[in-house]
Amino acid sequence: MIALDPSIKRHRTTDVTLTVTSPDGTPLAGQEVVVAQRNHRFLFGCIGFDLVPYINGELTGEAEAAEAERMAGLWLDLFNFSTLPFYWGRFEPERGRPDTRRVLAAARWFADRGLAVKGHPLAWHTSTADWLMELSNADVAAAQVARIQRELKDFAGVIGMWDVINEVVIMPVFDKYDNGITRLCREIGRIPMIRMVFDAARDADHRATLLLNDFDMSSAYECLIEGVLEAGIQIDALGLQSHMHQGYWGEEKTLATIDRFARYGLPIHFTESTLLSGHLMPPEIVDLNDYKIDEWPSTPEGEARQADEMTRHYTTLLSHPAVEAITYWGFTDKRSWLGAPAGFFRADATPKPSYEALHSLIKGSWWLPPTPLTTDENGRTTFTGFLGDYDLTTAATTTAFQVDIPGETALRLTC
Amino acid sequence: MIALDPSIKRHRTTDVTLTVTSPDGTPLAGQEVVVAQRNHRFLFGCIGFDLVPYINGELTGEAEAAEAERMAGLWLDLFNFSTLPFYWGRFEPERGRPDTRRVLAAARWFADRGLAVKGHPLAWHTSTADWLMELSNADVAAAQVARIQRELKDFAGVIGMWDVINEVVIMPVFDKYDNGITRLCREIGRIPMIRMVFDAARDADHRATLLLNDFDMSSAYECLIEGVLEAGIQIDALGLQSHMHQGYWGEEKTLATIDRFARYGLPIHFTESTLLSGHLMPPEIVDLNDYKIDEWPSTPEGEARQADEMTRHYTTLLSHPAVEAITYWGFTDKRSWLGAPAGFFRADATPKPSYEALHSLIKGSWWLPPTPLTTDENGRTTFTGFLGDYDLTTAATTTAFQVDIPGETALRLTC
Repeated sequence: MIALDPSIKRHRTTDVTLTVTSPDGTPLAGQEVVVAQRNHRFLFGCIGFDLVPYINGELTGEAEAAEAERMAGLWLDLFNFSTLPFYWGRFEPERGRPDTRRVLAAARWFADRGLAVKGHPLAWHTSTADWLMELSNADVAAAQVARIQRELKDFAGVIGMWDVINEVVIMPVFDKYDNGITRLCREIGRIPMIRMVFDAARDADHRATLLLNDFDMSSAYECLIEGVLEAGIQIDALGLQSHMHQGYWGEEKTLATIDRFARYGLPIHFTESTLLSGHLMPPEIVDLNDYKIDEWPSTPEGEARQADEMTRHYTTLLSHPAVEAITYWGFTDKRSWLGAPAGFFRADATPKPSYEALHSLIKGSWWLPPTPLTTDENGRTTFTGFLGDYDLTTAATTTAFQVDIPGETALRLTC
Repeated sequence: MIALDPSIKRHRTTDVTLTVTSPDGTPLAGQEVVVAQRNHRFLFGCIGFDLVPYINGELTGEAEAAEAERMAGLWLDLFNFSTLPFYWGRFEPERGRPDTRRVLAAARWFADRGLAVKGHPLAWHTSTADWLMELSNADVAAAQVARIQRELKDFAGVIGMWDVINEVVIMPVFDKYDNGITRLCREIGRIPMIRMVFDAARDADHRATLLLNDFDMSSAYECLIEGVLEAGIQIDALGLQSHMHQGYWGEEKTLATIDRFARYGLPIHFTESTLLSGHLMPPEIVDLNDYKIDEWPSTPEGEARQADEMTRHYTTLLSHPAVEAITYWGFTDKRSWLGAPAGFFRADATPKPSYEALHSLIKGSWWLPPTPLTTDENGRTTFTGFLGDYDLTTAATTTAFQVDIPGETALRLTC
């Protein structure tokens, strides 16, 4: 931790003083113990979309399954937080037949392994259910509320976090194609729409962490947030997308953006971050979906740049105390959004330098591997570590503990 | 009115049936009467800034005063609505010494001539008072509220309309220079800022028409408006700026913009419209204030274009029923904002074609000149006219009347 960014050290780490005692209170003096980090408090996430077929045993070929298992292991070795897909049009293409079983199996798989799981998104005009078009606005609203309540009840205890509503800034003026959600939002207005979906979600699972999420980083999103907060709607975290297909934002813009949205005192989640390892999308494209090319190759120069930007991006996010989570938007280039070379792995499943670059932070510079320590005559020992979950192993036992507050932490552990 | 745009005819005119009787109720049958329009209901406005020195008798040279008087006459022949300057930094450069007397004299001059008068603006980060910088945010807020209450009381009965607050979308993130209003808005938030200034204005003059005004025509302004309305703040009209230094918007964009903001059911005022008679500002300029050149000449081609666009712009605005007012931002090129050739008159006070183009609409195609009519055996006569104020002159008397509702109007006048 010698070269650690001072802001990261200040906001993300703590100097721990452990006092180790036996069950009768006697200090374990002069003993060899081992401290090892088990998890980060910071949520390092990725979409887990690719893993759903594997988890559900849908891969038929043996080689394919073995490959998927290897990739799943690499996925789990880097991330502690998974986002699963709830696009309404794909989740429930036929009304009344939701894809609950498959997605629930995937969510349980991650949750059983100790990961935080998020559902994305519960309300959005894009990829929404086509059958909404046949309904009146009042019925679209009722279906949207019922859908949210169903998902939050079906996934309660497994998925604890939701992008409740996505891209509301553009929602009522979205004009690419007609859809039920835009129609409804245009009629009732953005804030009543947000209130409706948040009320439904909160009511169905009051323990869940509920996010408002948007790609619009302009003052429009600020204005929306201020209206929402003024209206008394409780948002648990603000989601900022950062699909950087047109180029890495850089430290200055990233920090300025975080500062603008951190003003509201809410945790900031970078919900959708993308960095390319190929050529960039031209700057004149406004809606990223409009850029369609046959092939978007990952290149050696692009991969070097991606690895560098990955390091800078994650370092920047951890340096700002308001940021609590980042979800990277794509694990491999296979079936990646827009066909972009955005993953840590190429389409042929070979790793790009970005995987190792990020791994060397999350499980390297920012991680305490099993570390032998010796307690003093009072059973005390000290170490500095990132906030998160740890194990203390003595000759006799292994005891789990957490450190949650940056700065200094004093803990007494009975082993 | 034969060639009138059908939307303008539908929304702006009425077919009037007048029944003219003598005081004892006898119909004035078979009589020659004259109907003449005196004013438009629609507010055709312009900044009246240029006229303040003339009205206050501050012009020293005789030729200069005569010229100003001639220009004032031309001004009054075109417009029925004047906007006067209340930029805090110029209105009260030294705390406690506001420029009330001069501006009040100007406001009275317009009001005495039957014009509607608006003050612009009561709260804005640009051109605000420098001395706010020495105050705490709480004291800035108190000074802002006191300033609004003072102006609304001092000008009550003379100025009936106010741009209460200007450009709130950018206000808290404005970064060109430090100022007290940005500081305050950043601390308390946009909506509390708007509530504070509207409460102050409403409280000081509950009859006044109070506007929220912005140049940002993006979804940011929509989001702000939705938050403001959701917060229960009463806005009387929405101000949309349209400084078209980078080119005329055209009919499609103009109507789409009006449609987006008309959704809130509030009257729309085009508060600041500008069309150039010289070269356009390059499109890459984001803040118009950043474009500084030594000379910005009015050209023959530019003047022809300006006249054409003026006709199209005003025709478009009148075709949409939500628009109730337009203020043109500049009468002459002398001392025009940014030095742009935006006026109806060149810097040497000679008229551009745009003056005649607009005059031929407001006092031509859209105007009923003194028109002789003959009443039938029941004292009835009919005409079609723009909503506004009229005089009916019989052999004996002149009677004023108003028509306010588009479509059909039946009126009984006692002469």
